[in-house]
Amino acid sequence: MPDLGRLIAFEGGEGAGKSTQSRALATHIGAELTREPGGTPLGERLRRLLLEETGPLDPRAELMLLLAARAEHLAERIGPALAAGRHVVVDRFTASTLAYQGYGRGLPIEEVRRACALATGGREPDLNVLLDVPVPLGAARRSPRSEDRIEREVAEFHERVRRGFLAEAAAAPERWLVVDGSLAEAEVGAFVKSGVAARLGILPRAAG
Amino acid sequence: MPDLGRLIAFEGGEGAGKSTQSRALATHIGAELTREPGGTPLGERLRRLLLEETGPLDPRAELMLLLAARAEHLAERIGPALAAGRHVVVDRFTASTLAYQGYGRGLPIEEVRRACALATGGREPDLNVLLDVPVPLGAARRSPRSEDRIEREVAEFHERVRRGFLAEAAAAPERWLVVDGSLAEAEVGAFVKSGVAARLGILPRAAG
Repeated sequence: MPDLGRLIAFEGGEGAGKSTQSRALATHIGAELTREPGGTPLGERLRRLLLEETGPLDPRAELMLLLAARAEHLAERIGPALAAGRHVVVDRFTASTLAYQGYGRGLPIEEVRRACALATGGREPDLNVLLDVPVPLGAARRSPRSEDRIEREVAEFHERVRRGFLAEAAAAPERWLVVDGSLAEAEVGAFVKSGVAARLGILPRAAG
Repeated sequence: MPDLGRLIAFEGGEGAGKSTQSRALATHIGAELTREPGGTPLGERLRRLLLEETGPLDPRAELMLLLAARAEHLAERIGPALAAGRHVVVDRFTASTLAYQGYGRGLPIEEVRRACALATGGREPDLNVLLDVPVPLGAARRSPRSEDRIEREVAEFHERVRRGFLAEAAAAPERWLVVDGSLAEAEVGAFVKSGVAARLGILPRAAG
């Protein structure tokens, strides 16, 4: 049976505004909001392990932990919500893995893509929303005191990640909505809402 | 630079005698002994998560957690030991993933094989030692009180796993030593030692 709900992923680098904009869209269309890594008890444990508790982590181990969290998230939370007819908005999904672990860390892209497909059974978002911001702007928006292991990577790493997202979007424009994340928050929100309506036909939830 | 040490993996179903025989061989040849999942602090955390702390776990998530543990294990412990000229004996490696998650759980074998190669950078054991026992004998050797999540699987699952190991060994006989694990412990040990000597040229460590 095909899913009745649609899956919308917010993608982009650090400081792009994904948390804010994913929350705003989920409220606007009445969707379930979740994030990766995370979204389930196991996923949140793996998130802590990935972002907070470990020092240097082998890139291949990092990749596989992210894919474990995604498989669990899809099986336990995203899949059932979609099957029940609810839309799901997720803060990061497969494209983040391609951008960070593939383009960023230098693991072989097509092998990473196949491993992602194995973890998800081939399920991709119905729409990826890329909030694209120049790396220095993203860096300036972040609070240095709260930086996690990924955010502390050098600027060149984040440049590779940004180019990775843009390359993925350019290769499959029918599945991507690219929004200039350097605009004001309200403007970004307006572009996201109108883009989601145009691409997926999802309109605002009727006022209760 | 090629590895100076050799990697020997013990493989087989539950109750096959892997722990006993891997320990005996490691002592005999003076190798480092380790196990999967496990072998590093992160690996042991993932081992507990996989075997003890979770209820039903999505098969794809299970696969990816095992591969995360393997990548870390190889990068942090096995790889450095081999590079330093030490032989390593590991209780389970890639073939267990193919047998349990591929043949056993029914995930697509060739995709699982590629994901394994991504996790390990293509590193395979120099020799896999399969301790093959009929499933009922393996089951009879286990203590029912200590059964973990994997061991509680039904007999048909363990039959698929056994056939998986045998199929892998049949497809690459130059990398496998198949030993009848239903023999007495000392006999199995003698076959393993002579097989390792013949295949890899590794002789007993000189008495200290």
